[in-house]
Amino acid sequence: MSCCESAKNQIKDGWFREINDMWPGQHLALKVEEVLSCEKSKYQDVMMLRTSNHGRALILDGIIQCTENDEFAYQEMISFLPLCAHSNPEKVLIVGGGDGGVAREVDKHPLVKQIVQVEIDQKVIDVSKKYLPNMAKGFDSPKLDLKVCDGFEYMKNHKNEFDVIITDSSDPIGPATALFSESYFSLLKDALKPNGIICSQGGTVWAGVDYIKNTLDHCRKYFKEVRYPVASVPTYPTGQIGFFMAALNENADLVTPKLKLSNEDLDRYNLKYYNSDIHAACFVLPNFAKKILYG
Amino acid sequence: MSCCESAKNQIKDGWFREINDMWPGQHLALKVEEVLSCEKSKYQDVMMLRTSNHGRALILDGIIQCTENDEFAYQEMISFLPLCAHSNPEKVLIVGGGDGGVAREVDKHPLVKQIVQVEIDQKVIDVSKKYLPNMAKGFDSPKLDLKVCDGFEYMKNHKNEFDVIITDSSDPIGPATALFSESYFSLLKDALKPNGIICSQGGTVWAGVDYIKNTLDHCRKYFKEVRYPVASVPTYPTGQIGFFMAALNENADLVTPKLKLSNEDLDRYNLKYYNSDIHAACFVLPNFAKKILYG
Repeated sequence: MSCCESAKNQIKDGWFREINDMWPGQHLALKVEEVLSCEKSKYQDVMMLRTSNHGRALILDGIIQCTENDEFAYQEMISFLPLCAHSNPEKVLIVGGGDGGVAREVDKHPLVKQIVQVEIDQKVIDVSKKYLPNMAKGFDSPKLDLKVCDGFEYMKNHKNEFDVIITDSSDPIGPATALFSESYFSLLKDALKPNGIICSQGGTVWAGVDYIKNTLDHCRKYFKEVRYPVASVPTYPTGQIGFFMAALNENADLVTPKLKLSNEDLDRYNLKYYNSDIHAACFVLPNFAKKILYG
Repeated sequence: MSCCESAKNQIKDGWFREINDMWPGQHLALKVEEVLSCEKSKYQDVMMLRTSNHGRALILDGIIQCTENDEFAYQEMISFLPLCAHSNPEKVLIVGGGDGGVAREVDKHPLVKQIVQVEIDQKVIDVSKKYLPNMAKGFDSPKLDLKVCDGFEYMKNHKNEFDVIITDSSDPIGPATALFSESYFSLLKDALKPNGIICSQGGTVWAGVDYIKNTLDHCRKYFKEVRYPVASVPTYPTGQIGFFMAALNENADLVTPKLKLSNEDLDRYNLKYYNSDIHAACFVLPNFAKKILYG
């Protein structure tokens, strides 16, 4: 095993520090008990930590992708928002999501029949299977066809195929940069069936709101209805993450869930964050963000 | 000027680290350019930092109270939620709030005629006037009567006086501990006029949710309608803060603002976070929190 020194250097005095120019002058630190794994894949530094209070944490290129304790918030929201906004999400594409968490959530939706997932980095899948079993169990879904390849390339050859496409990417540096480009949204559009809906990881309005605005503008060139819902995830930068969510149809109602989940459904699906009220409420933004993104 | 060494010790390699047992195994760090002031008051360590990217930051007993860059989110929400939920908030009491930010916001509401503020620590007022002029301008409100005394003691002698009481306290360690006790909610109840509403700083469901549940239970002994709205504040622990919000009246509708603000109002009052849609949406909680707090 070759160590990725730059990632390990972010650990000091027992704290992993998520220092990055994308959120200048601030960072979250997590107390580390043990570095379980640290390898350079073909694409990125892949590190797995055992933290003192947040379970295990997957770190890619020095950035926290998930911790076992709060990963549910992100996985549930990026999955159930587009699935429940669609009236019949039978066939779903997941781009990225190498920890398996999104596949785990998509598998729960009663109308989903078929899931294709394209993850570029086999190493992320392997390390997640070894250390994040409660997320990687998503790979056991009988509905899932997992392909290890470039999502960008995959979509060039798959047109008019999917009802929902979820892009669970890392941030726009390193291997995920293309997933925020204008041409990516063009590919997403073409890969969708009529009535299709997308949902992509979208950063935070509290750091880099101009980048979000630019990406939304890319999205608006190919999609008729474009929104930016948000969720609270304490171990993501600024404690909040947003999503680029968009529909092919003009005036598509993304805010009202087509499938309303009862309390029994929430328990059966083990949903700890998402519910139908959250679905509607998460589209409401503070004035400053609303002005910049929709203004 | 006597320095507060323990507070200064939280600065390492140019980063202020908000390490505290209330949020074990995680902390936010802010890059520091300069320690502008660091003094021990009668009650607590009072430190003012100039940060690299978040403006100035007020630190009490080692905990971030506000940064100039995102303070608006907290100040607007703790003020406008109870004010707009009340049909006629003429007389308002602020307990704590020594930086002046809440007074600044309460002053904006068109129906407010009289504001009394009781802050225990003159040092916090002084340092805020010197270093946080955009917050301390709240003290210039012609509606304001500022008293430097113990809010707990003050309320013992003021019954049936206020329409709204806002408790802008630090966390329940140090001088603010009493403001989370059962007897405090009893005092709040008695200090209110009929139809009265309270709103208090309430921690985060992502760290110490059991403490929040206990405090809500204290509140429920004296108030008929009790809720826990939330707001995103990146420089608070976990990036989110909640509020104990409660009404004397049974079935009081806290969720629907009585005063709906137009876009012109939002601009005139310089509201960067609060709007009438946020007012309704902020009461929606993730399942896990809903179950614990309302379950």
